[in-house]
Amino acid sequence: MKVLVLNCGSSSLKYQLIDMNNESVLCKGLVERIGIEGSILKHEKDGLEGKYIVEQPMKDHKDAINHVLTAVIHPEVGAVKEMKEIDAVGHRIVHGGEKFASSALLTDEVINVINECVELAPLHNPANLMGVEACKAILPDVPQVGVFDTAFHQTMPQKSFLYGLPYELYTKYGVRRYGFHGTSHMYVSERAAEMIGKPIEELKIITCHLGNGASISAVDSGKCIDTSMGLTPLEGLIMGTRCGDIDPAIVPFIMKKKGLDIDGIDKLMNKQSGVYGMTGISSDFRDIEDAAKDGNELAKVALEAYAHKVKKYIGAYTSIMNGVDAIVFTAGLGENGISMREMICKDMDFFGVKLSSEKNNVRGKETVISSDDSRVKVLLIPTNEELMIARDTLKLAK
Amino acid sequence: MKVLVLNCGSSSLKYQLIDMNNESVLCKGLVERIGIEGSILKHEKDGLEGKYIVEQPMKDHKDAINHVLTAVIHPEVGAVKEMKEIDAVGHRIVHGGEKFASSALLTDEVINVINECVELAPLHNPANLMGVEACKAILPDVPQVGVFDTAFHQTMPQKSFLYGLPYELYTKYGVRRYGFHGTSHMYVSERAAEMIGKPIEELKIITCHLGNGASISAVDSGKCIDTSMGLTPLEGLIMGTRCGDIDPAIVPFIMKKKGLDIDGIDKLMNKQSGVYGMTGISSDFRDIEDAAKDGNELAKVALEAYAHKVKKYIGAYTSIMNGVDAIVFTAGLGENGISMREMICKDMDFFGVKLSSEKNNVRGKETVISSDDSRVKVLLIPTNEELMIARDTLKLAK
Repeated sequence: MKVLVLNCGSSSLKYQLIDMNNESVLCKGLVERIGIEGSILKHEKDGLEGKYIVEQPMKDHKDAINHVLTAVIHPEVGAVKEMKEIDAVGHRIVHGGEKFASSALLTDEVINVINECVELAPLHNPANLMGVEACKAILPDVPQVGVFDTAFHQTMPQKSFLYGLPYELYTKYGVRRYGFHGTSHMYVSERAAEMIGKPIEELKIITCHLGNGASISAVDSGKCIDTSMGLTPLEGLIMGTRCGDIDPAIVPFIMKKKGLDIDGIDKLMNKQSGVYGMTGISSDFRDIEDAAKDGNELAKVALEAYAHKVKKYIGAYTSIMNGVDAIVFTAGLGENGISMREMICKDMDFFGVKLSSEKNNVRGKETVISSDDSRVKVLLIPTNEELMIARDTLKLAK
Repeated sequence: MKVLVLNCGSSSLKYQLIDMNNESVLCKGLVERIGIEGSILKHEKDGLEGKYIVEQPMKDHKDAINHVLTAVIHPEVGAVKEMKEIDAVGHRIVHGGEKFASSALLTDEVINVINECVELAPLHNPANLMGVEACKAILPDVPQVGVFDTAFHQTMPQKSFLYGLPYELYTKYGVRRYGFHGTSHMYVSERAAEMIGKPIEELKIITCHLGNGASISAVDSGKCIDTSMGLTPLEGLIMGTRCGDIDPAIVPFIMKKKGLDIDGIDKLMNKQSGVYGMTGISSDFRDIEDAAKDGNELAKVALEAYAHKVKKYIGAYTSIMNGVDAIVFTAGLGENGISMREMICKDMDFFGVKLSSEKNNVRGKETVISSDDSRVKVLLIPTNEELMIARDTLKLAK
């Protein structure tokens, strides 16, 4: 069985075709600038030298998906011979609200419910749904499955997901903590249990998804009991361009000082903040690290503040789980940030965390990076959201 | 030497006259509704049965302070014979910005600097300054000292006090974490060291000031290295009517949904949230506890969420200090909330915290409430900000 996995953004689209017999990626790619001048598809597959590039106008997601399918069945660069070899399509859906605690077959009814969640994720859900609609039109007989970023976090208890706000904001407008990156947190926590060789039901795991967007989860007995992102993906850690936790009174304070309206403050917090805003250098941690090495003081402080925040969440989640057996690093910075992992894990022997600087000297590889005598296992696990989406799709499309 | 301690709010005023020879309170009281119809002064002193009440119009703080001084030198209810026995006045000043890392003699120059901090604490600093001006007018030859709520927290490193926001918001508008209740956190951490019988330089202490406003601090070797309140006293824990930490994106989200302007959202977060907003019952924890006992589900969840948040901060601060030797509870709920302290300290044996339910069955008394075999000492220490203000005043006025 072959599953096409789609992750649609507002003007972009990532895809993978996965053979579920051995969970291997047959081909994958990225479309950018959908509906904008300069649309481009970059397709790759094992054994193919370089990338197969298509530069043609793509006015919408349907156009883009048609080009993707053409590439997928292309006699030279493609991975299958004909469209009907695609048995199912799995879609990443960012916000499932409180309606979805697990993946769902995308019936018309389910799509209606996702539409209801649009106001909680106005930038993401409409783009995700464009991908669904386009696939339904092009592949009407192929089952489509939605896999939600929020689903894994639906096990959180009320004490974790309710804010200290008027209760009617929850009942009327759905204001609560939802959490994101759920597919990634679930994947790496399950892999962690396998690597440790214990049932996940016996483990307390803290998963650090440190990408351009970043979040941390407390996974107790395989269930998420708290996570750092909230109503939206803005809360929690300092990110590439997102501010993470701040005094909420800062929002009206800055609006007043800078004369910003609602959209202006949203943009400032989501696009102009994070390590980019703190340093004025870049949202890419490699650039910040380079600047810090060159003696840039703001870059040094931004890295310290970032690590400080991660440390605090690790402590907070250790506290509410009354212990921790494993800490997992994943996503861009988590998988590649050798010195960041070191900064985070430094001086944490009170918790039983001891990083091995030798083992930690690694990028993007599934491996244990704590020293042999570390009571807490520290693991590097490259995330694989696409595989998780494909697995759920397989399960539901069968 | 006798010191008058003043804590001026916008329409209220608390005072104590303290004899610094033995640090005893000679008399104390409260004025309410200054500048509003129904001004009232309630004065008390040891040995005086009931309270001495003055109900007279008081159009401003000068009026109020005149009435206070009349009570203080009153032949029957007063504590001294004449005004000149008052050697110095100590004022609580809420926001000292980055200018004051310790208390200061209130010269004209210092008062100008406090005026510059008004925009950081528009509700508090002007009221504090009204008290200073009134005292200067009435007691022109008596030294006046300012003791700042923010001063103790000025030892925080940049990684703790900088937000993940554009750096220019810090340099231009002073947007950073300041922290509040500093006088209380300092007092109880110093008392904790004395009770434990070790130099504070050798201790890692977490101080939980849980009043109607609530904040937690990490005190490492006697220095504050992080605290939960931020630019304003809104950030951090869930409070009586304040929301504490929320996803900052919730602010514009609610403004849009409810059509609120800047003042409207400020009011919602500061006055209509917290356990009051979560339950619709009260901002007083005794009422919430009663409702929870009667089976009110929202009350139960509010208490759980409150304890959950405190637990997370204790974990976070244990993490950044790489350990904890003592946890201190103080202020209204901290001193009197027997079951809340129990909820917070439950299931924290991983950190070495073991509360004794017998020893914890106490209110408002300086005592150890952890069990004898608890590695972490848990202490109940009634706060005494007035005494700290008087001590600093004595030091600087000499």
